[in-house]
Amino acid sequence: MMTRIAFIGFGVVGQGLAEILLEQKDELKENYGFEYSVVAVSDKMKGAIYNENGLDLQKLLDVVKSTGKVDDYTEGTRGWDSLKTITETNANLIVEVSWTDIKTGEPAISHIKAAIKCHKHVVMTNKGPIALAARELLSMAKTNGVEIRFEGTVLSGTPALNLGVYNLASSKITKVAGIVNGTTNYILTEMEKGLSYEEALKQAQELGYAEADPTADVEGFDALGKIVILTNVVMGGMLTKDQVPCQGITNITSQDIQDAKQEGKRWKLIAGAELKGDGSVEAYVRPEKIPLNHPLAAVSGPINALTYTTKYLGDVTIIGPGAGREATGYALLTDILDIHRKAVR
Amino acid sequence: MMTRIAFIGFGVVGQGLAEILLEQKDELKENYGFEYSVVAVSDKMKGAIYNENGLDLQKLLDVVKSTGKVDDYTEGTRGWDSLKTITETNANLIVEVSWTDIKTGEPAISHIKAAIKCHKHVVMTNKGPIALAARELLSMAKTNGVEIRFEGTVLSGTPALNLGVYNLASSKITKVAGIVNGTTNYILTEMEKGLSYEEALKQAQELGYAEADPTADVEGFDALGKIVILTNVVMGGMLTKDQVPCQGITNITSQDIQDAKQEGKRWKLIAGAELKGDGSVEAYVRPEKIPLNHPLAAVSGPINALTYTTKYLGDVTIIGPGAGREATGYALLTDILDIHRKAVR
Repeated sequence: MMTRIAFIGFGVVGQGLAEILLEQKDELKENYGFEYSVVAVSDKMKGAIYNENGLDLQKLLDVVKSTGKVDDYTEGTRGWDSLKTITETNANLIVEVSWTDIKTGEPAISHIKAAIKCHKHVVMTNKGPIALAARELLSMAKTNGVEIRFEGTVLSGTPALNLGVYNLASSKITKVAGIVNGTTNYILTEMEKGLSYEEALKQAQELGYAEADPTADVEGFDALGKIVILTNVVMGGMLTKDQVPCQGITNITSQDIQDAKQEGKRWKLIAGAELKGDGSVEAYVRPEKIPLNHPLAAVSGPINALTYTTKYLGDVTIIGPGAGREATGYALLTDILDIHRKAVR
Repeated sequence: MMTRIAFIGFGVVGQGLAEILLEQKDELKENYGFEYSVVAVSDKMKGAIYNENGLDLQKLLDVVKSTGKVDDYTEGTRGWDSLKTITETNANLIVEVSWTDIKTGEPAISHIKAAIKCHKHVVMTNKGPIALAARELLSMAKTNGVEIRFEGTVLSGTPALNLGVYNLASSKITKVAGIVNGTTNYILTEMEKGLSYEEALKQAQELGYAEADPTADVEGFDALGKIVILTNVVMGGMLTKDQVPCQGITNITSQDIQDAKQEGKRWKLIAGAELKGDGSVEAYVRPEKIPLNHPLAAVSGPINALTYTTKYLGDVTIIGPGAGREATGYALLTDILDIHRKAVR
């Protein structure tokens, strides 16, 4: 069964996935019976190309890398926008990696709904749609007999969501808490080495761990989106972002960092959620002082981690990257592979 | 589709699973469409009972807890040995939790083969069979159209195997290293608090973290079985135990522990495996001094952890319990649930 893929968006993450797909083509076929053809790419800036018989992915990547556009790739139909690409190509799986507004979740939400309505699976990494509309989209997908997957929205390719939803199914998760933002963890780690907050932020920006406008990371908004996803998808909650108290790291001083050291603790930006007695879930994002003997205290630099508290296992923690081209491309691959493995049983 | 379960062995682990199955009966049906009936229990010491219409699991547990045998449970056929129970009952899934010799893997291997040959799925926690014959058994199962599962053999219910085999599929794992034995990790942690090896061992025995004869744990043999499983099942190796150099913790002194502290390190018993250039895998069990900034260094007491080194994600670490009645019972539940989820797609 051939998986025919259309990319909506073809930036860093999309290209990262394309490279992994190319690299793994033979192994995926041999190990999982997974065969694919990329039939379309539609990107607002780079242009669009569609060939129902499949694109030469290496050639396309070369063109995009050297020219910044798909225009020099000529074998196919040009210029189809995202919705036309989703609904009218012969793709059966959409990779939704467009530039999307995290507040509104658009245009990704529209893309996802369009795909679901014409019975196409969707894999994605944008937090916006899932943080805003997880239940609605999952329910729509189920009704339409397709899968939507979004492992990359929390801890990137580190399988934090799959761990909670699949591997820890029925373990009776009562709590989740973690370090889900690499930018702030990097800054806090550097402050422990003696840098001021401003120095650490500047260094993070130089290394690509922080954006030119770092607000979403340092004010905790990125972590907020992720804990809403975890709450609603893993813990059965129904929270919206405005129901979650959110405090970032901008008030933490070098003195605070030193004081914590004296106490045998480390400041971490923690995103957490807890099941209450009445079955509802409460969530939060805030800095916390973590004792050194807690697994989360061992997490330094841009690395992320998540601890699930369960009835049968106590605490289970996963630690790994939370961002990055390859890590996020890999997240999409696991989503695609999971959909394939479900389909072939 | 009703899952009809036969227990081969009904000791601590078997009863742990039975309790979880009882507790979760409604949720398993509601969340996963999973329905079960326990039709038979066959235990060398406790006796055997079979009822094709299903046993009253609560009643059976009460009988076993108060009398140590199944004899007072009368509604059914008595006395069928393990092989007869496997081959002649109407069970379609065998829970193989018998007392088994870790060196020979028997009688578990015979049980597993008998089940596979009559097309019954098997879930298990005994390391012996998988450490000795993973490939053969997996291949037999595939040929016969059934599943064998053994999450509980490594890190108990902490899903270390599922993480490596499923969630990290195609991530290009080149190395695995971890703390896979809780007894020795507990002893080393206590030695760091100032106890001698002998004092720490005695305390471990009192708390149930070490056996009366602790050889298998302290000499590294338990870790050895687990790293062979990891090597062969996750990393495509074909090792036997005698090909793996194995050194336990019996030579570590209080002075060694203190010296490590001075160096900013902790002694840990590490089980590891690495992919070599020629595609073969080398494995080992040995004490190592781990720097404090490595996630494995944060793992204290009887807790276990495993780090997978991958191409696309770098290091991914999972931390959680490595033993225990509930944790191991839960491992079996995840195996059973996975088989069910595969069957219903």
